[in-house]
Amino acid sequence: MRAEIVSVGTELLLGQIVDTNAAYLARVLSEIGVSVFRRVTVGDNHARLLDALQQALAESDVVVTVGGLGPTEDDITRETLAEAMGDTLERDEATAHRLQAFFRSRGIRMAQSNLKQALKPMHGRLIDNPNGTAPGLIFERELDAFNDAPSGEATPPNPKSEIRNPKSIHTDARPGKIAMALPGPPNEFIPMVDNHVAPYLRAITGGGTIRSRTLRITGMGESSVEEKVLDLTHVDNPTVAPYAKLGEVHLRVTARASDIETAGRMIEERVKLLLERLGNRVYGFDDETLEAATVKLLTNARLTVATAESCTGGLLASRITDVPGSSLVFPGGVVNYSNESKTDLVYVPAEMIAEHGAVSAEVAQALAKGAITRFKSDFGIGITGVAGPDGGTPEKPVGLVYIAVAGADRVKIEKARFIGSRKDIRWRSAQTALTMLRDRVLELGSAS
Amino acid sequence: MRAEIVSVGTELLLGQIVDTNAAYLARVLSEIGVSVFRRVTVGDNHARLLDALQQALAESDVVVTVGGLGPTEDDITRETLAEAMGDTLERDEATAHRLQAFFRSRGIRMAQSNLKQALKPMHGRLIDNPNGTAPGLIFERELDAFNDAPSGEATPPNPKSEIRNPKSIHTDARPGKIAMALPGPPNEFIPMVDNHVAPYLRAITGGGTIRSRTLRITGMGESSVEEKVLDLTHVDNPTVAPYAKLGEVHLRVTARASDIETAGRMIEERVKLLLERLGNRVYGFDDETLEAATVKLLTNARLTVATAESCTGGLLASRITDVPGSSLVFPGGVVNYSNESKTDLVYVPAEMIAEHGAVSAEVAQALAKGAITRFKSDFGIGITGVAGPDGGTPEKPVGLVYIAVAGADRVKIEKARFIGSRKDIRWRSAQTALTMLRDRVLELGSAS
Repeated sequence: MRAEIVSVGTELLLGQIVDTNAAYLARVLSEIGVSVFRRVTVGDNHARLLDALQQALAESDVVVTVGGLGPTEDDITRETLAEAMGDTLERDEATAHRLQAFFRSRGIRMAQSNLKQALKPMHGRLIDNPNGTAPGLIFERELDAFNDAPSGEATPPNPKSEIRNPKSIHTDARPGKIAMALPGPPNEFIPMVDNHVAPYLRAITGGGTIRSRTLRITGMGESSVEEKVLDLTHVDNPTVAPYAKLGEVHLRVTARASDIETAGRMIEERVKLLLERLGNRVYGFDDETLEAATVKLLTNARLTVATAESCTGGLLASRITDVPGSSLVFPGGVVNYSNESKTDLVYVPAEMIAEHGAVSAEVAQALAKGAITRFKSDFGIGITGVAGPDGGTPEKPVGLVYIAVAGADRVKIEKARFIGSRKDIRWRSAQTALTMLRDRVLELGSAS
Repeated sequence: MRAEIVSVGTELLLGQIVDTNAAYLARVLSEIGVSVFRRVTVGDNHARLLDALQQALAESDVVVTVGGLGPTEDDITRETLAEAMGDTLERDEATAHRLQAFFRSRGIRMAQSNLKQALKPMHGRLIDNPNGTAPGLIFERELDAFNDAPSGEATPPNPKSEIRNPKSIHTDARPGKIAMALPGPPNEFIPMVDNHVAPYLRAITGGGTIRSRTLRITGMGESSVEEKVLDLTHVDNPTVAPYAKLGEVHLRVTARASDIETAGRMIEERVKLLLERLGNRVYGFDDETLEAATVKLLTNARLTVATAESCTGGLLASRITDVPGSSLVFPGGVVNYSNESKTDLVYVPAEMIAEHGAVSAEVAQALAKGAITRFKSDFGIGITGVAGPDGGTPEKPVGLVYIAVAGADRVKIEKARFIGSRKDIRWRSAQTALTMLRDRVLELGSAS
């Protein structure tokens, strides 16, 4: 089964934003065995978009558009795709009501133009969008044409069934074409791909598959990781490929097989081997973040942590509380930009700050211990450093960060010299703190 | 002058890497007045690449390929582009010698296949690549056809001159086509675009340019923004286009003109008009974030703010402290996940929490006032809500968030019902808090 991705938006064409959506979709499609034949990007221009869609529909079985579903005049994907598919749009009353209720609940008057987002293909259906106002659209008109054909084998789509059985579609038959229109904002686009597009197409393709799994590694550099797995990176199937990320390394294992079970088994065998070599430096898989893995460890061990942050300014607390259920392990934290608040909130002696400076191992340790006292937690984390771009001195340059993790028995302190932007330095500091905390919890586990 | 970008590489098609090169090139091209008509991505497949190139050459004046210039078998751009341009390749001896010397100097035996990288168009030339082994290629064959035409005005290209004068090319004339092939690694690609492609095309276009500026708007939905500027979105030059972002709206103004000054003036006039209509709902321009704009306002007014966050868990503090220089306006904040810490750190009465619940207008207000008391700041922000995905009840559903901004004189509280993921709800909560704070500071400014 062949697919084409059509990204719509002048801002993409002008390079004002990078098209991460298309890359994401392409990856998902190839993992479910749909080969992406071409990707094309056009601006918010009816004639050019129509041209691109017609060409895509002529050459591929599935065409997926990204973007152009907003309520404004230059959002033309919905209408143009209907035109290319020879379909018409009708208002879906349930969706219209939902839109109206949404605006009412927020006390905002709904502009008439928003009702565009309640339009549904005559031959097709809408994809629910829990994260925005624009639902996705699936056009199946040419499937009808196919289904109406004399062969009579296939069942006509039932617009009422939430997910009709798409197995009946002969993927090698023409003109059995599917077109989907997905919204551009990544927070709406990605869940729609994961929860609707992928299962829908997976059901249709049935056949050969590509699977992959990502191991996420912390506390080891990319070249050290690669050294340990170099032989495996030369194997063709499954492949193992390292990717350097900010503060961590990912290893992607990809297997091709005739069916999902075989591919899954190949991956699991390879993952097992990788885990033997990398041990607990692998903190998680796929989309699991370091904060999520750490919160899980703490939850299982029934331990809590509190934070006292200076240069990271709440980033560490924000990452921890980004994890659903983190309230079980995180009573709270403080952000101490001012020296006064370091003393007032987490008991760092003013004399200590005067003697060693706010950016010092002593203060990091006092912050960590103060967090424990203040929040009555099992662990405390203290971070103090120079995030830049200003404020560096020869003795305390930009990127110098002290990170302390305190437990009941002892404190561990790391002195780091991070490079990069303010954002990078803050991120790496929080990453190191989470890694140190994770190591402490793991030690406890192996000691008990 | 119209351009198309053709990105070549199966890894792009599969989404294994994100195509930042094409976005970069698109931005540079539009800045020098070359309008990018379409972008297309194809795999390392001769027939499909040839097809894409032929179509691009039929519709655009300039076609630029990215990638596929390496020494391996699946690097086919060079040959396929020559085929599409009706040109042939010949070995450039100087480049061949340089390649051999390069490998010798690193003590590596050069594979024969590397000599592919010394091939040069019969009608065209190579672009020097100081950062890799593959030079870029410029094909000008169809320019010859044009130059040989009876009009006789244009001078034939002189292959010896490093940069011949391209002014003589009539950009509206056919068949005056240019094709360029650039290498894929960004550290080779970007310098080549900056140092060769941009000057070459700038000379051809005669200095025409496109400039743009983005207005960033908070506290107004996309459709309300559009209503206010609808007439301007119908104007062709400068264009005005709205984009919905998470919790804010962007309006992009783009002007085309013969020179940078004219384009800049056109933009400034349009921006002035937009500011008259949207007033202080415009918080910033281009890459300025809401937190940066708010920190700037506070800094200028010599005011400080402290935060007491429950459901946002430090995200607001983290966004504020992401801004360089924020320490002048932000003494600190607290993250109060536990009710105990709400009482202990920012004096929220335990009875109030018992009576109204932690998620309530009363607690939000107490958090905001407590932050002021604790940090001796001018403003205090309190946020409490249900970020989800769990923890919602019929009375207090996921997405219900109370946001309070307190000053010395009064407190303003908003009750919001956000939709989306935990991440979205947290982001929108912080966004609303920053907007409310900004409004308070603006009021002070206009009152004084």
